[in-house]
Amino acid sequence: MSRDKNLELSAPVASTPSRRVNQGPVMPIGGGEEKDGDGGKEVLQRFLDLAGGKQARIVVVPTASETPEEMSQPYIDVFSELGAKSVEVLDVRERQDANSDACVQLLEGATGIFITGGAQSRLVALLAGTLAMECIRLRNADGVVVAGTSAGASIVASHLMSGGTGLAGNSGSAAARKGMVELVAGFGLLQDIIVDQHFSQRGRMGRLLSVYAANPGLLSIGLDEDTAVVIDREGILEVLGSGMVTIVNGRNATSDYYERDVGEVLTVVDSHLFVLGPGRRFNLNTRRPIMT
Amino acid sequence: MSRDKNLELSAPVASTPSRRVNQGPVMPIGGGEEKDGDGGKEVLQRFLDLAGGKQARIVVVPTASETPEEMSQPYIDVFSELGAKSVEVLDVRERQDANSDACVQLLEGATGIFITGGAQSRLVALLAGTLAMECIRLRNADGVVVAGTSAGASIVASHLMSGGTGLAGNSGSAAARKGMVELVAGFGLLQDIIVDQHFSQRGRMGRLLSVYAANPGLLSIGLDEDTAVVIDREGILEVLGSGMVTIVNGRNATSDYYERDVGEVLTVVDSHLFVLGPGRRFNLNTRRPIMT
Repeated sequence: MSRDKNLELSAPVASTPSRRVNQGPVMPIGGGEEKDGDGGKEVLQRFLDLAGGKQARIVVVPTASETPEEMSQPYIDVFSELGAKSVEVLDVRERQDANSDACVQLLEGATGIFITGGAQSRLVALLAGTLAMECIRLRNADGVVVAGTSAGASIVASHLMSGGTGLAGNSGSAAARKGMVELVAGFGLLQDIIVDQHFSQRGRMGRLLSVYAANPGLLSIGLDEDTAVVIDREGILEVLGSGMVTIVNGRNATSDYYERDVGEVLTVVDSHLFVLGPGRRFNLNTRRPIMT
Repeated sequence: MSRDKNLELSAPVASTPSRRVNQGPVMPIGGGEEKDGDGGKEVLQRFLDLAGGKQARIVVVPTASETPEEMSQPYIDVFSELGAKSVEVLDVRERQDANSDACVQLLEGATGIFITGGAQSRLVALLAGTLAMECIRLRNADGVVVAGTSAGASIVASHLMSGGTGLAGNSGSAAARKGMVELVAGFGLLQDIIVDQHFSQRGRMGRLLSVYAANPGLLSIGLDEDTAVVIDREGILEVLGSGMVTIVNGRNATSDYYERDVGEVLTVVDSHLFVLGPGRRFNLNTRRPIMT
């Protein structure tokens, strides 16, 4: 009887395959990942391993860049050198290209999808809501690894930041100011998460807190350059590369966001801060590090 | 009887004036404070007000700079323009100068002491442990305001960071690495505190955490440019200027500092993060914001 009950309880999980059951790894990279040098390339090697190693059929998505050939070439070179079976490039110059059969067929054959850097706004404008995006989602739901670097790292999450420059621009822009960024919908491979990149290098804590003050349920992940996280289907995050990963959990934080005017500096207190070095793991469900 | 007891208990406070009883304000500034423009200058105006306004006798300490005349002149100009009674410059080219009667007399007449930016190492090498430093301490203990900007902001605390570049140098330096900075003794006007400056602008969270991982009892204050804190004798901090102040409390944090080798990226979990906008206050004794 109790055995039957157990079966009954577990049945929905077995018979209703949610995306999570088979979801492939998602791998946001902070930009500036090592592409040559001895023993570097740890981040890209891991991506290739997750894509099937010698059997990997990689599709590079350089749509964030205005010069997609130049942006793709180093990745074609490094994945070929590391032994991928094939490396092809998704060619989307206009939004309608992203609804073409050619795009869908290319992505359907991929065992690993790699989204390059460039401008986040291009990824949103040219890919969000297209068949190509839907295909990337479905492939990931089927177990295929999806990685993105720099702008490509931000687009994989449910939300990304639009506007705001971190350090670029005048010095005051580094502070958390109301309205300095807006949230935009990403590809949604990671729920309740915002990913920012070039994080320490570009002094982006202020930018991150400015959006997060208004959306305290989100978990923020700041990736340094040449640093990545691999997130598996259980929601376990692992740090790779040479830098650190900054995680800010704001579930218990409070801010004055709704009392401030646009442009004013925000106050955000009682955030929980985690800085993780290479090899460290973090449980995104419990929002706690796994210190073993 | 109980009244006598109360008197007895309060007697030591009254008869043993600790530094804290009369300590003047301490005012670390994140560098790049506004010196002209309409309605800017809030930070420098507050310093002047605390120094006595029209009665202020300011001493500028440009010892951090290799070109002290050039460094002093903008402060002479702005404090004169704001109406200070006098603005004089402490002239220390070599360490022995800082033990001279002239230096001591100049500082003894000051109602406000302003330490400029430059290289922290020069402040340590030329002033730490000299009569001039002791005189700055005593003046502050007597109620005189002491402000410092950039390198001058770091020197006023009990400890400061030596080495480590934040963003400058290679990208990896932005991560928290063991041994990237060392602690050096500062002037000690603020206990158990490290002050860093140009904080968001130079991406210095990693640098700060690297020292703090080994010294979790310290409270870290990161000041943005054109942003200052005024700390009064009760240990109440108030934010001034145009940017944000980042406070990290590590009393409950844990790190792998003592398991890591020099140069390795550190992991620091469960830090408590506060980001405060202009006008906000924070109690350094309880390590809690004052949200009124």
